Amino acid sequence: MVEKIVTDLEIIRIKDNRRSKEEDQVVAEMPLTLFVNGKGFITLLCSPAKLKCLAIGFLYSEGLLKTSADILNIRVDLERNAVFVETALEAGRVEKLSAQRTITSGGGKGMVFFNVLDSLQGKPVESSLKISVPKLLQLMAALQKRALLHKATGGVHSSALADREGILFYSEDIGRHNAVDKIVGECILKNISVGNKILLTSGRLTSEIVVKASKLRLPFLVSRSAPTSLGVRLAAEMGITLVGFVRGGRLNIYTHEFRVN
Amino acid sequence: MVEKIVTDLEIIRIKDNRRSKEEDQVVAEMPLTLFVNGKGFITLLCSPAKLKCLAIGFLYSEGLLKTSADILNIRVDLERNAVFVETALEAGRVEKLSAQRTITSGGGKGMVFFNVLDSLQGKPVESSLKISVPKLLQLMAALQKRALLHKATGGVHSSALADREGILFYSEDIGRHNAVDKIVGECILKNISVGNKILLTSGRLTSEIVVKASKLRLPFLVSRSAPTSLGVRLAAEMGITLVGFVRGGRLNIYTHEFRVN
Repeated sequence: MVEKIVTDLEIIRIKDNRRSKEEDQVVAEMPLTLFVNGKGFITLLCSPAKLKCLAIGFLYSEGLLKTSADILNIRVDLERNAVFVETALEAGRVEKLSAQRTITSGGGKGMVFFNVLDSLQGKPVESSLKISVPKLLQLMAALQKRALLHKATGGVHSSALADREGILFYSEDIGRHNAVDKIVGECILKNISVGNKILLTSGRLTSEIVVKASKLRLPFLVSRSAPTSLGVRLAAEMGITLVGFVRGGRLNIYTHEFRVN
Repeated sequence: MVEKIVTDLEIIRIKDNRRSKEEDQVVAEMPLTLFVNGKGFITLLCSPAKLKCLAIGFLYSEGLLKTSADILNIRVDLERNAVFVETALEAGRVEKLSAQRTITSGGGKGMVFFNVLDSLQGKPVESSLKISVPKLLQLMAALQKRALLHKATGGVHSSALADREGILFYSEDIGRHNAVDKIVGECILKNISVGNKILLTSGRLTSEIVVKASKLRLPFLVSRSAPTSLGVRLAAEMGITLVGFVRGGRLNIYTHEFRVN
């Protein structure tokens, strides 16, 4: 199954009490199975774009990959809806992570939640990055300008890596976590140093998104949506600046205000 | 950790270039570990409300529970952020499902995606339920009226079971899937016959949401948001009426129009 980012279909539209048959577009959703060293690891449901970045970002967020040096080969097989990742890791480690996921896999993507909290403890992200309010508003406006797929279909989240000059790269996906994992994967694949970078997202700032940023050692998270209590708590503990509700010239700073000048 | 549905905290608000320290509320997020017959099964990240419904709805959606008769006991332990479910299932079945999840667990919640597709195949939902356009608009308006938490925090999804007379019960959660699982769980716990019911949701109609409705044999899914291509395809195959973008007197019918009169 190969799909486009949007799928054309015929729908019934009801407007002002009139019923009409019309051509419409909905956002494409596909299952994508990640194979690690030849073995099925997980099936994600995602938008059919940047599948290599998604695979690598997901495996990094899960703790399976530590650096791009762990990756020996990546092959996308669109006929089989699969990405095959060959890693330098011993089989034991892959199986151990598989087994752990079964026990306490969490919210979005089977994350080993308590293990992650443990692994993060005591190592806050350090960065001297500072950015002004007008620049933050500009960056979020640039994200929205890029979000053409959302405009067409109303069905995706967008995310981007930015520095103070603007957006470096952009992703979108039906899944809030996937859109962020695509950015994480692109950072790994391109060996980007993220200590002075900003992650922009259209989605809510839940604990899992903050954990992804923490693992990458990324100091700044910005969203046009709301954070959650656990997202704020983790960002506070992890030294990450959390900015939400960036809309119409306004924004809220939840943690580590010193980076907003 | 016991949390309220919203958490009060102090934030920095920037508006019209003025920076002020203010009291604000963010939606609470908590980890919740489900234990099945004494063994840890998964940790979900969720809103602290209707935790029994969430646990049962999740385990039903995963295929672990088939009817309320499978449930021997449910105990919520807020000190340990846990729900303990005792079931009549033999240990082998629980372990088999745990193991399967490791291999092809999908998008939202570790669902065995291809197995689910297989298990659904060839058994479309049958229902003679019909509902008028004005009634659909009323139901979605009622859902939005109930969504007070969203208004306060901007951070949750809402979902409800309804019949043609109105909303029967309501849920909200930081997770789109969790909000629906809470409704699924309440249906199981109350032995509700859903053949003539409607599931309302604020969230997008992705494949996983349609799969949850299919498993419950629920014929009608309505959202104010967008569907995805796979959501539409599954609903078409499974005999489920899918209605999206219910907003401002308009709506789109994607599948099985005959139930909208």
